Amino acid sequence: MSLLTVGSVAFDALETPFGKTDKIIGGAATYITLSASYFTNENNLVAVVGDDFPQDMIDILKGRGVDTTGLEIRQGEKTFFWSGKYHNDMNTRDTIDVQLNVMENFDPVIPESYGNCEFLMLGNTAPAIQKKVIERLPNRPKLIMLDTMNFWMNIAWDDLMEVIKLVDVLTVNDEEARQLSGEYSLVKAAARITSMGPKTVIIKKGEHGALLFHGGHIFFAPALPLEEVFDPTGAGDTFAGGFIGYLASTGDLSFSNMKRGIIYGSAMASFCVEKFGAERLFNLTTDEINERVAKFVQLSAFEIQ
Amino acid sequence: MSLLTVGSVAFDALETPFGKTDKIIGGAATYITLSASYFTNENNLVAVVGDDFPQDMIDILKGRGVDTTGLEIRQGEKTFFWSGKYHNDMNTRDTIDVQLNVMENFDPVIPESYGNCEFLMLGNTAPAIQKKVIERLPNRPKLIMLDTMNFWMNIAWDDLMEVIKLVDVLTVNDEEARQLSGEYSLVKAAARITSMGPKTVIIKKGEHGALLFHGGHIFFAPALPLEEVFDPTGAGDTFAGGFIGYLASTGDLSFSNMKRGIIYGSAMASFCVEKFGAERLFNLTTDEINERVAKFVQLSAFEIQ
Repeated sequence: MSLLTVGSVAFDALETPFGKTDKIIGGAATYITLSASYFTNENNLVAVVGDDFPQDMIDILKGRGVDTTGLEIRQGEKTFFWSGKYHNDMNTRDTIDVQLNVMENFDPVIPESYGNCEFLMLGNTAPAIQKKVIERLPNRPKLIMLDTMNFWMNIAWDDLMEVIKLVDVLTVNDEEARQLSGEYSLVKAAARITSMGPKTVIIKKGEHGALLFHGGHIFFAPALPLEEVFDPTGAGDTFAGGFIGYLASTGDLSFSNMKRGIIYGSAMASFCVEKFGAERLFNLTTDEINERVAKFVQLSAFEIQ
Repeated sequence: MSLLTVGSVAFDALETPFGKTDKIIGGAATYITLSASYFTNENNLVAVVGDDFPQDMIDILKGRGVDTTGLEIRQGEKTFFWSGKYHNDMNTRDTIDVQLNVMENFDPVIPESYGNCEFLMLGNTAPAIQKKVIERLPNRPKLIMLDTMNFWMNIAWDDLMEVIKLVDVLTVNDEEARQLSGEYSLVKAAARITSMGPKTVIIKKGEHGALLFHGGHIFFAPALPLEEVFDPTGAGDTFAGGFIGYLASTGDLSFSNMKRGIIYGSAMASFCVEKFGAERLFNLTTDEINERVAKFVQLSAFEIQ
């Protein structure tokens, strides 16, 4: 089934203990669509860049089958830019520079050619923009998933509450779940968030895995223990893209299938952190993904006699 | 098979956001033997207390079938005392008071009646004392497991290295694994620790679960997501006691069985945090434990099609 992703396509400049990059392709929607492209081939993008965004970066997305009809190139303006530096532990980072540029007045237009998308992924951006997307769709998708962050909780609480009640799946990290709910216990946090609207809550815990709360059930997916995390940028978006891409490819919204989606998302995230930016997502093979998923099975399988 | 546990039996005074206690029974060996008592009935203890330690606390251990022949009661001296206060997040705590008392010159004597123990659990105490225990056993046990902490890495590094090379299983938390190995990645940390001696390394991550490294394999056990953690004191020791108690009850040292041991240990730890101190471990039922283990199965089971 078709997936529509709305969010940022951007320039990132990254520095980790392993090295640094010039401006490379980044942004939530980039990671989401690249990751989802390994599961669904109806992969539609709505985003905005400036006229400084090079064609070869757009070609990376097109090369993975992403439909970029909805990628607006705004003349005379510049692409969203983020620059960050990771500390030695790779779990904390400093933002060196943020230039919103075209994102300052992003007004998402959904091409008619995208038709009726059945899965909608709202990547991290202003809640008011996320809500506009839902309102502008001719029909409500079968599943709407939203990612957000503490920044919007701090400056756009009311807008966030407005859009949250319209979505099926919310994905946030553990600290964001605590801030959003006012509860320290993640079990209580998920229950509180569910009362705000989303029937399904996914709490990302980075190297500690992810929790899926759905219909009174809880599933705990491990993260793959890695020898080296080269660059964690985009891992959460890659996870989300793998999850919703897998759901879109199967059309199955059962808890069992969502659990599989979480594992596929986790596998994709484990690739993402192996190289700078989104590079590792440019040309994975199905065999590589299946082998990685098999590692997750090994990692968590046990039998009680 | 028989289990011998050596470590502290102590008074604890605890304060959490939910309340505070007077002096209650505490100490690593208390939690370990109570937890192990649900799996093995050859549960031998070597520890030392002062003459201020009340008989009803000793009776708690005896009531669970723990053999206290090796519990030395030193006349004219006082029991080890620890007092701590947890912060609101329950993950950090301040030590309010520590009085080593009898632990200052603990000289472990192993009663002849304990015979040849097949499983040895060295609870957290000075590495030199842990080494003495191994030297004083007439035969090397089938499995020796050691728990330690950053405190000993800071003040008794050489002693720790001496004893670590004699043990089969080392259990530490994630920060301790990093300090011990000098590696941030837990995969690299476990490899480095293995090169120091232990063939099996268990890294406890509290609310984030536990990692078992053994023979080139990795197993990730989740922690049960709880609505409320009432008091985390002793959870790590309870986990260790459940693990080695389960191994002792089965006598099976295969990776598959160690994985089961990790799950049983995790289940026991999830009970421990539900009440103050060790109280929840005084009278659990087999049904309660089996139901809790079933929750771990539900929590981590998934099927890839």
